[in-house]
Amino acid sequence: LKPDATRFTAHVDTLLESGCHGVVVFGTTGEATSFAVDERKALLDALLASGIAPERLIVGTGCCALSDTVALTSHAVLSGCRTVLMLPPFYYKGPSDEGLFRSYAGVIERVGASALRIFLYHFPQLSGVPITRGLLERLSAAYPTVIAGIKDSSGNWDGTAALIATFPQLCVFPGSEVYLLQALKEGGVGCITATANVNAGAIRSLYDAWCRDSGRLEALQGQIDDVRQAVEQHSLIPALKHIVSLLRADSSWRRVRPPLVPLQAEPAERLAGALTRAGFRFPKSS
Amino acid sequence: LKPDATRFTAHVDTLLESGCHGVVVFGTTGEATSFAVDERKALLDALLASGIAPERLIVGTGCCALSDTVALTSHAVLSGCRTVLMLPPFYYKGPSDEGLFRSYAGVIERVGASALRIFLYHFPQLSGVPITRGLLERLSAAYPTVIAGIKDSSGNWDGTAALIATFPQLCVFPGSEVYLLQALKEGGVGCITATANVNAGAIRSLYDAWCRDSGRLEALQGQIDDVRQAVEQHSLIPALKHIVSLLRADSSWRRVRPPLVPLQAEPAERLAGALTRAGFRFPKSS
Repeated sequence: LKPDATRFTAHVDTLLESGCHGVVVFGTTGEATSFAVDERKALLDALLASGIAPERLIVGTGCCALSDTVALTSHAVLSGCRTVLMLPPFYYKGPSDEGLFRSYAGVIERVGASALRIFLYHFPQLSGVPITRGLLERLSAAYPTVIAGIKDSSGNWDGTAALIATFPQLCVFPGSEVYLLQALKEGGVGCITATANVNAGAIRSLYDAWCRDSGRLEALQGQIDDVRQAVEQHSLIPALKHIVSLLRADSSWRRVRPPLVPLQAEPAERLAGALTRAGFRFPKSS
Repeated sequence: LKPDATRFTAHVDTLLESGCHGVVVFGTTGEATSFAVDERKALLDALLASGIAPERLIVGTGCCALSDTVALTSHAVLSGCRTVLMLPPFYYKGPSDEGLFRSYAGVIERVGASALRIFLYHFPQLSGVPITRGLLERLSAAYPTVIAGIKDSSGNWDGTAALIATFPQLCVFPGSEVYLLQALKEGGVGCITATANVNAGAIRSLYDAWCRDSGRLEALQGQIDDVRQAVEQHSLIPALKHIVSLLRADSSWRRVRPPLVPLQAEPAERLAGALTRAGFRFPKSS
């Protein structure tokens, strides 16, 4: 269950080549919270040592402990990765906006880097700690050059649309590609999504078609949605790792750290079948 | 916002002298998750260096990352603290019992210390990850000498009573002293409670009265309940820190790490008034 820097680096490389403008390392899908601060630092070091451009990375750095978040954020910025995705501290539920403001402000002040750009991470289903509009307003006013945007993984499109409308100065990313076209139409800037790990090309095609105003947008969105729907029949992270294992013909990719568990044989087979019907082609397994 | 080993040590000392049989260091009230692994190790080292007996400590060691939980648990055991209180990994919600079993088993196997005794930490309101009876059964069967008990902070007495009845081989602690007498009557072994930070003497008196079968049990429980009720009008952890600051005439004690915030002036005054009416006497503030 140790981090595997070689496979990690190869995977990020593939994602950047297959259509992703950038990659979030250490988000929810990357099992960030399942790894220690030192493990995460070492993985980022390995990634950069392999030659991947720091400008194409967004580094997940939000931990429960202020000191951990400061350590990871400082390390990212000093490594040339100025953009981070930051969970709020997520053990204490129902914190006040004042407490969350102090948390983010405390990190910003302690890191003390003018280059720092933060995307806040709104994922109430897992963190249990929503980023409220009031908090966002206050942070954006206090640190206008640092607070760069928000990843909205709530899955609530109306909330995402309200964020886009309320905060034109911020980059708003829905946390799923099923909202990509809607978000682009409203003024969102793209999406940050787990499924890009296995479907980056198709998602990028929709983005490019939007930029070229080339029509077919709804059809492209529909194809992307079909893939997402097939994956969402299963526990998302083990399912994605299973698909990567099939795409790379490398069963090592199925490993997850507890409390996650790999997909079992029967659902794995159903998933592969659904994706094959959606046009995926898998190499013969090794 | 750095850890204050001097005040920490003095406080643990006071608790052990004022009636606590033992002290959990790095539980929810101790803001464990707000501190980094190295900060927590250094605080435990300072505590033991001051001469506090390791047998009287229970060390909170459960983190989101398996590697962090292993590091903290190994450090505790190697320091002579064989008993730990272990949260499940708490970022991913709705994990399977299989995943949680692998998590605890993974820690036990990696720590590899026959002396280790684990109390599981059931606090679904904050962790979002309940310890189910099925998980407890499986862990207790697989590691009968390691799995020693459970702290049930759910606040659901029926659930606590069911744990006591179902697992006679385990030490069951309710997470609040309001259930102490009921728990002792049913076969529980005591309580592990935040409010012991400010009311250890009264809680111990009830425990001792129970052991001596000396009557007055309901009256003692009633007095304890009054204090708890006064504290529960407020945000629990900041309120307790405020009370400690009053008892020690030391305003430094009011500090909390974000996302918690200290009690404001008006509720702080109400709290002090209610406790004075309940019989608390505070020294003149410094």
